[in-house]
Amino acid sequence: MPQALSTFDLLITGCDVLVRQDGKYAVVNDRDIAIAGNRIAAITPTDAIDRAQAREVVDASGLLAIPGLINCHTHAPMVLFRGLAEDVTIESWFNDYIWPLESNEEPEDIYWGALLAIAEMIQSGVTTFADHYFFCDEIAEAVDEAGVRANIGWAVFGHEGEAKLNQTVDFARRWQGGARGRITTWLAPHSPYLCDRDFLALTARRAKELNTGIHIHCSETHDQVVLSLKQHGVTPPVMLQQAGVLDVPVLLAHGIALTPEDIAMLKDHDVAVAQCPKTYMKLAMGTAPVHAMREAGIVVGIGTDGVVSSNTLDVLEQMRLLALDQKQAAKDSTTMPLQDVMAIAFAGGAAALRLPDIGELAEGKLADIALLRQDGAHLFPCYDAIANLVYSARAGDVDTVICDGRLLMRYGRLLTIDLPRVKAEITRRLQRLNQRVAEKRLATYPA
Amino acid sequence: MPQALSTFDLLITGCDVLVRQDGKYAVVNDRDIAIAGNRIAAITPTDAIDRAQAREVVDASGLLAIPGLINCHTHAPMVLFRGLAEDVTIESWFNDYIWPLESNEEPEDIYWGALLAIAEMIQSGVTTFADHYFFCDEIAEAVDEAGVRANIGWAVFGHEGEAKLNQTVDFARRWQGGARGRITTWLAPHSPYLCDRDFLALTARRAKELNTGIHIHCSETHDQVVLSLKQHGVTPPVMLQQAGVLDVPVLLAHGIALTPEDIAMLKDHDVAVAQCPKTYMKLAMGTAPVHAMREAGIVVGIGTDGVVSSNTLDVLEQMRLLALDQKQAAKDSTTMPLQDVMAIAFAGGAAALRLPDIGELAEGKLADIALLRQDGAHLFPCYDAIANLVYSARAGDVDTVICDGRLLMRYGRLLTIDLPRVKAEITRRLQRLNQRVAEKRLATYPA
Repeated sequence: MPQALSTFDLLITGCDVLVRQDGKYAVVNDRDIAIAGNRIAAITPTDAIDRAQAREVVDASGLLAIPGLINCHTHAPMVLFRGLAEDVTIESWFNDYIWPLESNEEPEDIYWGALLAIAEMIQSGVTTFADHYFFCDEIAEAVDEAGVRANIGWAVFGHEGEAKLNQTVDFARRWQGGARGRITTWLAPHSPYLCDRDFLALTARRAKELNTGIHIHCSETHDQVVLSLKQHGVTPPVMLQQAGVLDVPVLLAHGIALTPEDIAMLKDHDVAVAQCPKTYMKLAMGTAPVHAMREAGIVVGIGTDGVVSSNTLDVLEQMRLLALDQKQAAKDSTTMPLQDVMAIAFAGGAAALRLPDIGELAEGKLADIALLRQDGAHLFPCYDAIANLVYSARAGDVDTVICDGRLLMRYGRLLTIDLPRVKAEITRRLQRLNQRVAEKRLATYPA
Repeated sequence: MPQALSTFDLLITGCDVLVRQDGKYAVVNDRDIAIAGNRIAAITPTDAIDRAQAREVVDASGLLAIPGLINCHTHAPMVLFRGLAEDVTIESWFNDYIWPLESNEEPEDIYWGALLAIAEMIQSGVTTFADHYFFCDEIAEAVDEAGVRANIGWAVFGHEGEAKLNQTVDFARRWQGGARGRITTWLAPHSPYLCDRDFLALTARRAKELNTGIHIHCSETHDQVVLSLKQHGVTPPVMLQQAGVLDVPVLLAHGIALTPEDIAMLKDHDVAVAQCPKTYMKLAMGTAPVHAMREAGIVVGIGTDGVVSSNTLDVLEQMRLLALDQKQAAKDSTTMPLQDVMAIAFAGGAAALRLPDIGELAEGKLADIALLRQDGAHLFPCYDAIANLVYSARAGDVDTVICDGRLLMRYGRLLTIDLPRVKAEITRRLQRLNQRVAEKRLATYPA
């Protein structure tokens, strides 16, 4: 007798689920999540669906299901340099560490670095990341193999010229919609301080031709704004606007020193901003005007930045730090309340990456899910499940991760990445990668 | 044939060890730690000691041994109210939440709350905590059973009067040196803003009679200092000095708004200060002048505060936040470097609690040890083991915990606390505990 086709590919049973109801985030208890293909088919009370209807069942009793976390700004392969640039100024960080170190990188290094980063992200419940880096074919291959979702932009400096820009355009064309639709590609000029107006204008034209977006660093410090006003007579966002960059979808990283006028103008262009507070605190860069951005209607998402500044790719940690840093800077403990943190992390992350089908657990959405253990003493009692998620949960609680309907980690075990092999490959490369020869640096931070 | 007596009670094999060499913290690889009774007998290269010489062996291959973490200021049983006071002002936090909630507490609640808190601390690698709370016999019993080390002070408000103070003195006498020496007791007047000068002077006399110390909140906000100047003509630390409080060993919690003159005076009295940065950020209280304190020679340790403000009892998290908040506030990314964070967390914590035999892994020291997993992707590569510990490691990495030579957690399993039973006992009490009747509050925060 032929076996009946299963209605569902995956059934997650008995979990609590973070949902959005009337715009508010809340946790509902005792649910099953049914997945068909790469999408959520239904979220029902536990046992409403016959388990025999599912090809595979994940017993998630006691676990909390949240949308796979979204990392809106990182440089994933920089995990290769974790811990190499501690307690230094931002100028030294760029000129004495990052750019000399990055000159050592070869394409295969990036492949293994990306896999290590993706392993860390999966272990931390992150299913989507926006990467801004080099040798992006290798990153895309790692994403394809590991099963996560990514927005990838090949970073380019103005001094590298049009030919290099066109190579990054070719990458964007090659991988747009790759990995069965899990990869989107944008262009990624480094920043207004390392790309001149003509180069930015050219990049904007290329992005329009490709019908894609631009991911760029902007207004990271007050000093950068002062320098821009001196050199160009305008703030960095205005320079982007003048170059036509804001005529395509833009994800702007950091924006710590945005002015009120910048914010109003960026809103008019539907620019989204990624916030990576651990980097801002560690490098003493100041605190971004997130409240003003959101009041103006700007979409804000959470990023981790690269680990040479933030040391982890842990979005839960960054959510917590966003709230803590915003409260401290505002001298107001009522600012950045729990619901705002959630809205930024989930709805904001999805909107920032223009991926409306992620960031929420609901019927029809993509099946990107992190399941967290709740049995640690640090999560009890649970009067307020949102407070526990933002202020008490930690990446170590992540137990099982699903992306695009596929299990990437189950009961703490990575299913798509051979982490010991990745570590062994990277270990062979460390001696070469950690050399710092100042003359070999990729660029120079203007001081 | 009678079995030979074992030379060692416990042998921890094959781990990396955080040590202090010439005043600097460093990690040495491949070591065995031999424990006899409650002390470290030797730290040797792996396999230098015959395993047959040990009564019990813990295979710690791949783990990092650090001194058991020291929590210099908490209100452990407040775990009962985790997540109940989010996104509120400090005045509301005290008057509408904490003090009404605490009026519901009965002694047995505190016993179960303390056990839950201790379970969380063990799971987070914390082996010693300084508690400032009520119904301290129940806390002491929980400490005794669970096997951790604690400095316990029974909190008292000035308006409760001499009879109540004397009850806290009786507790201090009853439990000093209890739990086979793991408990020390101090007196714990709440604060200069809730204890008048006469009450503080009386407390100081009692502490002298007992030959013990005082654990007290002080200068938590700038507003408190302004109020003190207005009401008493002096800053809160000067009020403590005038009352004779500083003539005994003092652990001062917070000190966010200490003046330069306060700092110099506190140093002259060998006062130690506990820092709980997560609370300061979450309640937007400002940033303490830790650099100035340490320049002056004041001992600084790390605390978690109670979880109604900090949401966890995670000392690793507080170490990281101390560095991040100090760098951000100073607008200087070179301040609070890694070695300073380590010195505060370990040597500082031990000195703050006047327990010179904890906080360091070395021959002759007490055997208080946390063993952390290092196999997570977030801890690789390990160019800088101290950077990884401060900025990448998380409480979820804690695998095995030893206090006073006894295993309290092994391979992630709690050995001295029945956590499911503790949760069940607390669950029965939540409905009564979470009532908030303003008129029933214990005290009123002066605004």
